[in-house]
Amino acid sequence: MNVMITGGAGFLGQRLARRLLELGYLTDSNGSKRAIDRILLVDVVPAHDFGDPRVVTVAGDIADAALLHDVIDTQTTSIFHLAAVVSGQAEADFELGMRINLDASRQLLDRCRRLGHRPKIVFTSSVAVYGGQLPAIVQDSTALNPQSSYGMQKAIGELLLNDYSRKGFVDGRVLRLPTICVRPGKPNKAASSFVSGLIREPLNGKEAVCPVAPDTRLWLLSPRSAIECLIAGHELAAASLGSNRIVNLPGISVKVEDMLAALARVAGPELIKRIRWERDPMVERIVGGWPGAWNVAAAHALGLLGDTDFDSIVRAYIEDDLEPNTVS
Amino acid sequence: MNVMITGGAGFLGQRLARRLLELGYLTDSNGSKRAIDRILLVDVVPAHDFGDPRVVTVAGDIADAALLHDVIDTQTTSIFHLAAVVSGQAEADFELGMRINLDASRQLLDRCRRLGHRPKIVFTSSVAVYGGQLPAIVQDSTALNPQSSYGMQKAIGELLLNDYSRKGFVDGRVLRLPTICVRPGKPNKAASSFVSGLIREPLNGKEAVCPVAPDTRLWLLSPRSAIECLIAGHELAAASLGSNRIVNLPGISVKVEDMLAALARVAGPELIKRIRWERDPMVERIVGGWPGAWNVAAAHALGLLGDTDFDSIVRAYIEDDLEPNTVS
Ligand SMILES: NC(=O)c1ccc[n+]([C@@H]2O[C@H](COP(=O)([O-])OP(=O)(O)OC[C@H]3O[C@@H](n4cnc5c(N)ncnc54)[C@H](O)[C@@H]3O)[C@@H](O)[C@H]2O)c1
Ligand SMILES: NC(=O)c1ccc[n+]([C@@H]2O[C@H](COP(=O)([O-])OP(=O)(O)OC[C@H]3O[C@@H](n4cnc5c(N)ncnc54)[C@H](O)[C@@H]3O)[C@@H](O)[C@H]2O)c1
Repeated sequence: MNVMITGGAGFLGQRLARRLLELGYLTDSNGSKRAIDRILLVDVVPAHDFGDPRVVTVAGDIADAALLHDVIDTQTTSIFHLAAVVSGQAEADFELGMRINLDASRQLLDRCRRLGHRPKIVFTSSVAVYGGQLPAIVQDSTALNPQSSYGMQKAIGELLLNDYSRKGFVDGRVLRLPTICVRPGKPNKAASSFVSGLIREPLNGKEAVCPVAPDTRLWLLSPRSAIECLIAGHELAAASLGSNRIVNLPGISVKVEDMLAALARVAGPELIKRIRWERDPMVERIVGGWPGAWNVAAAHALGLLGDTDFDSIVRAYIEDDLEPNTVS
Repeated sequence: MNVMITGGAGFLGQRLARRLLELGYLTDSNGSKRAIDRILLVDVVPAHDFGDPRVVTVAGDIADAALLHDVIDTQTTSIFHLAAVVSGQAEADFELGMRINLDASRQLLDRCRRLGHRPKIVFTSSVAVYGGQLPAIVQDSTALNPQSSYGMQKAIGELLLNDYSRKGFVDGRVLRLPTICVRPGKPNKAASSFVSGLIREPLNGKEAVCPVAPDTRLWLLSPRSAIECLIAGHELAAASLGSNRIVNLPGISVKVEDMLAALARVAGPELIKRIRWERDPMVERIVGGWPGAWNVAAAHALGLLGDTDFDSIVRAYIEDDLEPNTVS
């Protein structure tokens, strides 16, 4: 298997590569388990190459058709298409979001269509495709109504992947991710960046700013479970998906105040003092408009599983990502 | 008011132009009723110009950015964006459908975005955005799941128009049309072309081929009512639309056998002999997957009205479009 990961230097891209190297195998479109020969990490920023001969890194912009032409050929068996401009940035810079989240995705699909070898493509969509008046639990049959340009671009990516799959141009799978928490490292330009910050910053002895009300409900998935779902989504037989290729990945529904209570339980109540409350109307509008929960029955039926509770998510962050002796 | 109609030489474009000339007025974005100074008909095929000094016709391809640059300026107050490649053709020629139904729509929106004067844009979407497992009556909250490339392209057009409106780049309105029946003239490459043919061909002494089962349920709107809805949709205040700009226009739900019964009642039972039954799996799959009905409450609340019954639709065709003494 020749696997390509766009956005391969990113948060999920790096973890996915590491996990695929550990696994060593993936299932091809014919249902055969085959060794992973190569993982190509494509990103505008340089990707960590893990010192493994199977990993090849390419620095480049996926909005550049010439790059896509170079990195995708008939040997490309699977593409995890993760490269994206995040929500806050796509809202602030409309043209950039359109170019990367929409045009580049389409060019990637068109490159595959022209090659005609029908690779598996896993596309990461988001809670941001929903918006407006929503039921307490969003159903698979609930209409999309994105209230951000990022959400609109992801919704269009879904429609493209579905139709390209229906036409037999690619073998696509759209995985709608809840907000991933706890994301390690620095804050980013996602409107939801604060969500991870609420747990991460206090555990690293820093202040976190909370721009939304304590009773704001969030729909969360841990990085560990997200990676397992991306791989399990790749492994699904096309026939197990119905007349569309979209799966709403399982999340857990927690209020901001529940997250902080979990943090206090796992790492001590004094950490909560490191939260500063400062409302941000732009973040409230975007993140507050996302679903607080959706129906996970389809994902579960396909064997895609999420987390059990938020305490475990905090513990997983401490185990996987926190530098030893940082908790203070 | 300077009004542009893309696809202005088409079936609905020509009727819309005629009706706008009769009315003489439209409401601008500020809610003021203003005289129509100019109607620009843009189409790849030459448009009838009605011998009215207000009508200007331009022959050209809206996928050509230079043409859009020429025909849209800050004086363009309203655009009825009707130009499209129909369903059967977009399914047969994927690249053509993408270029006209998607790229051209986006370029049109981008031209307006760059000009910054926020014209009203009426975009005609379709039943084809729905598909897969559908409730007996589709709701405004029902998820889209297009099963044709045409439906996918219309769904993307909707998302773009919504987001460009939300961002304040344009003042858009998406009107989802039922299948328009009775369309006069020749059959076209729409998968639904036969629907009008079932009424039109027998009334013109010709044979009609029915490619679907007699109990296939269709969701129909007459040309007269469609034009009234396009204009009423233009006239709506932006504030009367909620967090999205989409209105499902009212239709009437009839089975093919009900249509033929109406034809027999209005024009004589002997006409039914002119129907030849010959199933076409491609047409059955596409048209059979469209909604047989959707909830019309939102449209009615906005004052957008449809037809009362199918017999009146047949009579309206005879009055508006049939050459005198053709019924035979
Ligand atoms: N993390 C989340 O909470 C979350 C939630 C929903 C969906 N997603 C989606 O999952 C995917 C991965 O998310 P992530 O958290 O790893 O994001 P990330 O920002 O860490 O990674 C995205 C990577 O894409 C790269 N990239 C951006 N533009 C590029 C371009 N033009 N060419 C090549 N590379 C480019 C960036 O450099 C970055 O390394 C994205 O598609 C994102 O929209 C993430
Ligand atoms: N008639 C229906 O049943 C129905 C149903 C749902 C939606 N619609 C939509 O309503 C709109 C009008 O439909 P219609 O029935 O009048 O269709 P039509 O085919 O009669 O008219 C479309 C016009 O667009 C023109 N056109 C196509 N490509 C063009 C291009 N590149 N540049 C300029 N002009 C171009 C065609 O020449 C044609 O005159 C379309 O957007 C259609 O998708 C129609």
